Amino acid sequence: MFVPRDIQTAARAVVVSLTIALTPAVALAQSDPLPSWNDTAPKAAIVEFVEKVSKEGSPDFVPEPERIAVFDNDGTLWVEHPMYVQLAFALDRVKAEAPSHPEWATTQPFQAVLEGDMKALAAAGEKGLVELIMATHAGMTVTQFQTIVTDWIANARDPRFKKPYTELVYQPMLELLAYLRANGFKTFIVSGGGVEFMRPWTEKVYGVPPEQVVGSSIKTKFAMKDGAPTLFRLPEVNFIDDKAGKPVGIQEHIGRKPIAAFGNSDGDLEMLQWTTLADGLQFGLIVHHTDAEREYAYDRKSEFGHLDLALDAAAINKWTIVDMKADWKQIFPGN
Amino acid sequence: MFVPRDIQTAARAVVVSLTIALTPAVALAQSDPLPSWNDTAPKAAIVEFVEKVSKEGSPDFVPEPERIAVFDNDGTLWVEHPMYVQLAFALDRVKAEAPSHPEWATTQPFQAVLEGDMKALAAAGEKGLVELIMATHAGMTVTQFQTIVTDWIANARDPRFKKPYTELVYQPMLELLAYLRANGFKTFIVSGGGVEFMRPWTEKVYGVPPEQVVGSSIKTKFAMKDGAPTLFRLPEVNFIDDKAGKPVGIQEHIGRKPIAAFGNSDGDLEMLQWTTLADGLQFGLIVHHTDAEREYAYDRKSEFGHLDLALDAAAINKWTIVDMKADWKQIFPGN
Repeated sequence: MFVPRDIQTAARAVVVSLTIALTPAVALAQSDPLPSWNDTAPKAAIVEFVEKVSKEGSPDFVPEPERIAVFDNDGTLWVEHPMYVQLAFALDRVKAEAPSHPEWATTQPFQAVLEGDMKALAAAGEKGLVELIMATHAGMTVTQFQTIVTDWIANARDPRFKKPYTELVYQPMLELLAYLRANGFKTFIVSGGGVEFMRPWTEKVYGVPPEQVVGSSIKTKFAMKDGAPTLFRLPEVNFIDDKAGKPVGIQEHIGRKPIAAFGNSDGDLEMLQWTTLADGLQFGLIVHHTDAEREYAYDRKSEFGHLDLALDAAAINKWTIVDMKADWKQIFPGN
Repeated sequence: MFVPRDIQTAARAVVVSLTIALTPAVALAQSDPLPSWNDTAPKAAIVEFVEKVSKEGSPDFVPEPERIAVFDNDGTLWVEHPMYVQLAFALDRVKAEAPSHPEWATTQPFQAVLEGDMKALAAAGEKGLVELIMATHAGMTVTQFQTIVTDWIANARDPRFKKPYTELVYQPMLELLAYLRANGFKTFIVSGGGVEFMRPWTEKVYGVPPEQVVGSSIKTKFAMKDGAPTLFRLPEVNFIDDKAGKPVGIQEHIGRKPIAAFGNSDGDLEMLQWTTLADGLQFGLIVHHTDAEREYAYDRKSEFGHLDLALDAAAINKWTIVDMKADWKQIFPGN
């Protein structure tokens, strides 16, 4: 067969570059996408599910646009003990803003925060908590709040691990997010936490862009101020994305049912029900905090990340339960 | 140079298939991405903007994840005369449901709809309209409503053009959506219309998936019914995504500022302000309905798609105004 020399050379170059281009892809496909997961049942269940829904011709095949996965944040993607990170943020903000609010020195629940009186703070209950949130999360523009969160998250340190909170995310879950995305899933966060508290850092930390974060919110108001458009944050609850609110938030925001849901507490029960109790193949998973040494151990009696009804429901509905101690080789990145 | 014969053959196959594979791409790149737009100022402005923000190294370069474009729907992407399509849907639903509601025969505004008495319907005002919407859009599950919309949109016909409404979308805007996406933009719909009225068909018609549709909504409630999770639609307004609500909806849903906004009425004014009045390069565009022959001609005095303040603001803020008659070669697909 005659092949002109320049075609030969060009062709060889193509073959060589194709070989080079394909090698990492092949290597990647062969390597373990979930290296921080032990080879126990949860990992096998995840891989089996992903392969079934993403393999064309499989009876459980799901077209790519419908591969929606939803993740709770607190306790599922990052630490939520000794308290929700957003609560630590609110307490820090009270301290930072106290000089402009001399009345807080003698007004609960602010006084409790400033004096570090956790008993008085607990006594203020949910009403007190809402007051703290409104005082620290409203009264500024959306842009100003983003700056406040960005600064805080860069500088705050967890009291036990002495690290930024964004480093106290779960390495196995980061791998899971990436593994799902590599298999055509769109990953969303669906959290009881404030949506604008998460958005400034979720893209960098989880690879989840702002438009794929669903969370609780306060009301905002648009106005032109001196010719500039502003969105002002009002001290009024808009939406609580927790418990029965999660399916509502999912529908409002995503507009279709997820096929995989990942949570760790009773706040995720309805999201798991909404996702998994339907025709077709779905996947539900609960992260069970069982590792007091490397992280924390808590469930039915815990205030933050209370896991009771959802743990019972997991057994009934065949949701995968991750035993952090047994199933995770590594907890945090870089350890 | 020695090249073994099997490698030669393989290489030639690769070159041939690459050539075949690349040819359409090259042809596409060289062909006009906006063939239904005349070579007038709006087309030039669009192309200039897209090239500036998507060309790496350009002083106006915007990273891909931040290339967010928002589109109004009624009057911007599809027809809104002689009435909003969703209103035609509501009227049809009243007629379809009338047998189950004998009381409607003597109750306004239902009686007006059933008797085709548009004067009495207009007299019922906004209160009457809300009653119609609630009676036809609530009282069923989200899934049931999706089925109702899907059936209706497949069978309803526009009274003037005798075509399904999904064929009365603007061909130049379909090209624009595709052109933006081909240049790394994520395209969102931000409409005053009901979000669940749009989601069943926007992916197929506009290439915009449900999670990228922002709209008005009624409240929903999650409950387990006989072991099955349901989201029930309640007759209560949740959010009005119009006028000053549009920037609010954009922030709640997308979480970052768009860099391009496309509208056609005063309902889009605040969305255009929010998008374009900021640092950096942005693009604002208003579709001006000027073609009574091929579509409709209306602006300052129209009830549907009222365009008055936003038309004045366009001149001040240098937003691009599309004169449908002069700037669009073709209005609808397939003409």
